[in-house]
Amino acid sequence: MNKAFVIGISMTKFVRDPKLRVEKMGASAVWEAVGEAGINLKDIQEVYCGNVFGGAGVGQKVMAEVGFIGMPITNIENCCSSASNAFREVYHAVSLGRIDIGLAIGVENTTSLLQGRPIADEDDLEGAMGNSFPAIYAQRARRYMWTYGLKPEHLAKIAVINRRNGYYNEKAGFGALIDIDTVLKSPMVADPLHLYDCNTHADGAAAAVIVNEGIAKRLGGKPVEIVGSSLQSGKLPERFIDMTFEDVSYRAAQDAYKQAGIGPEDIDFAEVHDCFTIAEVLRVEGIGLCERGGMVKWIEDGTIEITGKKPINRSGGLLSKGHPIGATGIAQIYELCKQLRGEAGKRQIRGAKIGLAMNRGGAIAGIEANACTVHILRS
Amino acid sequence: MNKAFVIGISMTKFVRDPKLRVEKMGASAVWEAVGEAGINLKDIQEVYCGNVFGGAGVGQKVMAEVGFIGMPITNIENCCSSASNAFREVYHAVSLGRIDIGLAIGVENTTSLLQGRPIADEDDLEGAMGNSFPAIYAQRARRYMWTYGLKPEHLAKIAVINRRNGYYNEKAGFGALIDIDTVLKSPMVADPLHLYDCNTHADGAAAAVIVNEGIAKRLGGKPVEIVGSSLQSGKLPERFIDMTFEDVSYRAAQDAYKQAGIGPEDIDFAEVHDCFTIAEVLRVEGIGLCERGGMVKWIEDGTIEITGKKPINRSGGLLSKGHPIGATGIAQIYELCKQLRGEAGKRQIRGAKIGLAMNRGGAIAGIEANACTVHILRS
Repeated sequence: MNKAFVIGISMTKFVRDPKLRVEKMGASAVWEAVGEAGINLKDIQEVYCGNVFGGAGVGQKVMAEVGFIGMPITNIENCCSSASNAFREVYHAVSLGRIDIGLAIGVENTTSLLQGRPIADEDDLEGAMGNSFPAIYAQRARRYMWTYGLKPEHLAKIAVINRRNGYYNEKAGFGALIDIDTVLKSPMVADPLHLYDCNTHADGAAAAVIVNEGIAKRLGGKPVEIVGSSLQSGKLPERFIDMTFEDVSYRAAQDAYKQAGIGPEDIDFAEVHDCFTIAEVLRVEGIGLCERGGMVKWIEDGTIEITGKKPINRSGGLLSKGHPIGATGIAQIYELCKQLRGEAGKRQIRGAKIGLAMNRGGAIAGIEANACTVHILRS
Repeated sequence: MNKAFVIGISMTKFVRDPKLRVEKMGASAVWEAVGEAGINLKDIQEVYCGNVFGGAGVGQKVMAEVGFIGMPITNIENCCSSASNAFREVYHAVSLGRIDIGLAIGVENTTSLLQGRPIADEDDLEGAMGNSFPAIYAQRARRYMWTYGLKPEHLAKIAVINRRNGYYNEKAGFGALIDIDTVLKSPMVADPLHLYDCNTHADGAAAAVIVNEGIAKRLGGKPVEIVGSSLQSGKLPERFIDMTFEDVSYRAAQDAYKQAGIGPEDIDFAEVHDCFTIAEVLRVEGIGLCERGGMVKWIEDGTIEITGKKPINRSGGLLSKGHPIGATGIAQIYELCKQLRGEAGKRQIRGAKIGLAMNRGGAIAGIEANACTVHILRS
């Protein structure tokens, strides 16, 4: 394995606008990432593009809009993990020496397609019976509350923290300064999850230029090294065995730690897939940052906040940024790079050296998740 | 680069049946390929699944149906090249030493979705104006006829040859013993292309198990080596510069020849993407098997037939097999493996040592093709 570095990264501001076109959003992200990398478009040897709902040829549409096409372009679908999956493919191509410079894109317009509906596959009997994502996470929250003494106020505090983090992130469309009361008084979506416990679908794009060590050194700038990259899918019945433990998140994280030669104690901060407040709880524990049930205390004592030992979702997370399905994974890595380069402005985590991004999505046919990726980056 | 081999390959019979489900077809293909490979399901370290129209998580649905899941699964979309693109990703993972055993799947039910319509993207202004695939290929046929003296009878002869080849292929849903008159008297779709000059959408699946040299030797059987694998995308205006030359096919083929350390003269037989009869003409020339304009003579003198020097589409091609978009690419590789292992029965090409599969798809935003793959396999 050769070393691989992110030398250009970008994301559009995530918003809700059905009129935004994937090729325009994607091209905007590509131009910014390529510009930051200081490379020419013709230097891009290969492109992987994550997208779920855009139909055929989304990567090609983006690159045609960018104005440079002809290199290999592969479109990747893995539900909410599509962008981080595309990032992984480019990372592998570079780290295994197949290419020197690659481009990963994630892009989605969800609002024109989903019109507010939770995503459920036509064939999804479970979803058709009402066990949609809010319902699934509500059940998991109830179980976690029963097992570990978590209260709605704890979940509400995550909503408050992440919305505040997002308030200081100019790319986050839904940050806000709210208090716990606001969360608890917001409409109930699926008991115990209120409206503010849920993320919102959104529209946006993100892109990353990944290169090998020689090029990273030659171009200068602030390369960020990718030291771990793992993709796993869920196993069959695990969601029903223990709703408070994320086996797929655990496996992906352990694999990534092994690659990086570190343990969870070495992670300075993380972006985790907080599609709901309870999801952040389950994921911080799933990736082994915190012991099982330990998030109750971490929420209470501020460990996950900017002043704490393990700031989580300093970008604002999905709760603040919004969640453009096929773009979210690279947007997490955007935050990692910004923090590791010391460019996060008002939301900068002091002394951030190693960051982790955990992205997961889908739950077909009773499996825990279609996919879960964990990436570890180092400044 | 390490050596990589196909040790298990399968395809379902391609048919038209809207009721066939992707997970059932896919699982059927996976079980057969894995069985032929002589490996356990738990030995599969990674899966890439090609599909276009099946929605999110098709690879996961297939593997859940198979009954074994948990490994990394990535879904690949690249229009009609989706399956060969998935095959390429697995090949890279094995040949670059990232994994030892990988599985590539291609699967599609087109008939439940397309209902006979030619595929056109909603945003495709060209398609909306009537420039659908039959129209585009009709224009290319006219131009080729004007330039090189090709006649409708030449195209009809390709339809006759490929339909006859398919008649002897039990996996081909649409083979037939027809004559040139039948083709020329069939309804005109887009002058000069008659009904029999066109392939049909279909439903089906194909799968391939790819392993490294050590495992191929240990398991025995009849491993087929992958010696070249290329993916390219079209450039912007090239379709309008010369409609008789396929730049993207040329680039993909030249790249694959270079990897294999051979030239087109070394190819014993090929499967090319004959979505229309004229497409076979353009592609055999595009990949450099035949000089430009030379296909007129090759059709006349039988070079492309079983008795000729360069048998083309001995499986029956898309014209006979039918074209389940996301499965077609691996079905081409199925034919290569069957021929190279001497297991093609009545359609066996004597002394076949090196075969080429050329698969392409899509034409968004005025580019020649979204993707083109060329694979070269050796017995």
